[in-house]
Amino acid sequence: MNRRHELYYWPHIPGRGEYVRLALEAGGAEYVDVARLPEAEGGGRTAVQRMMEKSARGRAPFAPPILKSGRLVICQTANILQYLGPRLALVPNAAADRLWAHQLQLLVADLVVEAHDTHHPIAKSLYYEDQKAESLRRAENFRTLRLPKFLGYFERVLRENPAGDGALVGGTLSYVDLSVWHTVAGLEYAFPRAMARLLGAHPKLAALSRHVPGHPRLAAYLASSRRLPFNQHGLFRHYPELDDE
Amino acid sequence: MNRRHELYYWPHIPGRGEYVRLALEAGGAEYVDVARLPEAEGGGRTAVQRMMEKSARGRAPFAPPILKSGRLVICQTANILQYLGPRLALVPNAAADRLWAHQLQLLVADLVVEAHDTHHPIAKSLYYEDQKAESLRRAENFRTLRLPKFLGYFERVLRENPAGDGALVGGTLSYVDLSVWHTVAGLEYAFPRAMARLLGAHPKLAALSRHVPGHPRLAAYLASSRRLPFNQHGLFRHYPELDDE
Repeated sequence: MNRRHELYYWPHIPGRGEYVRLALEAGGAEYVDVARLPEAEGGGRTAVQRMMEKSARGRAPFAPPILKSGRLVICQTANILQYLGPRLALVPNAAADRLWAHQLQLLVADLVVEAHDTHHPIAKSLYYEDQKAESLRRAENFRTLRLPKFLGYFERVLRENPAGDGALVGGTLSYVDLSVWHTVAGLEYAFPRAMARLLGAHPKLAALSRHVPGHPRLAAYLASSRRLPFNQHGLFRHYPELDDE
Repeated sequence: MNRRHELYYWPHIPGRGEYVRLALEAGGAEYVDVARLPEAEGGGRTAVQRMMEKSARGRAPFAPPILKSGRLVICQTANILQYLGPRLALVPNAAADRLWAHQLQLLVADLVVEAHDTHHPIAKSLYYEDQKAESLRRAENFRTLRLPKFLGYFERVLRENPAGDGALVGGTLSYVDLSVWHTVAGLEYAFPRAMARLLGAHPKLAALSRHVPGHPRLAAYLASSRRLPFNQHGLFRHYPELDDE
């Protein structure tokens, strides 16, 4: 796989772009994280905005992340990962396994929306402070009902995986493992108290989250400046009042 | 395509199952809508619950709709449609076109979540009446910012489609047209005043929504008792106070 990929995503947050970046890094892809380049070299936020305005043969993006791969321009995180998976050996070969991996990835996407909406339950266009009362209600429901349901499901998938509980799909690292691990990490950043309690009750998911970042290429990436830390502008945000009492 | 499909979805609402049903119907598939059978014949809500508890080779569903196709059990609406599309001639053949169709379908899924959350902005587990104040705020943002953004995007896709503005992907009916049309219909049920105003400003989307239900197999389905009407338990609900003033 030598075809060069270009990732377009906002340079100041991990956000949804990080799910794509993790696959590119763990898969050893040659890629350019365009918006992380200096503005003078065609990078910065304007690089993303430029791609958003472009319409490749009538096919405009709706939102980043955007992957440019040769002549293809692909959007929607799960769609990009489904495309990259086989090319980076991050998903098994069988069609049934790929459908299953994509199904799990779409569930990660659902979880990510719900995690985001704990701090933005009313509107993306308003500040957290302008929807804090609603956030308190939504976050409580998320911590006590939704989050246990999602984590319990991933725990079950690991437990019932016929190839062993070290991976979610098949017996080796897939893009789904990367995404689930990163989501758990984001949730631990946002809800440290709730997640400490919940991960204790989900030992296989906790084990996955410990071993995934040890993957050699991933460990090198995580130690580099290419890895952006979670922060208060992204999908996962730490507001102590939204975490366990 | 003679392989028999089984759809498992709650029998009392169109919900997300309807997106799958529309593809099966318009594609002329032989299928059984299992939960719509009488309980005595293995139907009803218990048929869905039974499928939810099953784990086919360690692969449990998280939520319906569930499509059983031969030995495959597939979940997540967009994943099911991506699987059915080529089998029912509801998507072009080229890989790039299929990626594009799936990308649009994932955007429909995003819009559907936002439409649902106008009446459930805090918790799926609470009644509308227990989150009405928050719904009023979220619905206003949805009608004035989010909905115009989504509709404007689909209008642009139709306008820029090199194969013509009669379809979203390529020149003939695809599962994406079915999904976008049905979503527009659901939004018209939920927000009749806002949608009357908005569709006037999106003529190509309005035209698509008029001609899709004229497709012969689809028209026959829509006239049948298999088509469930929108109602106050589904994704799209009509609460007049959430619509335009």
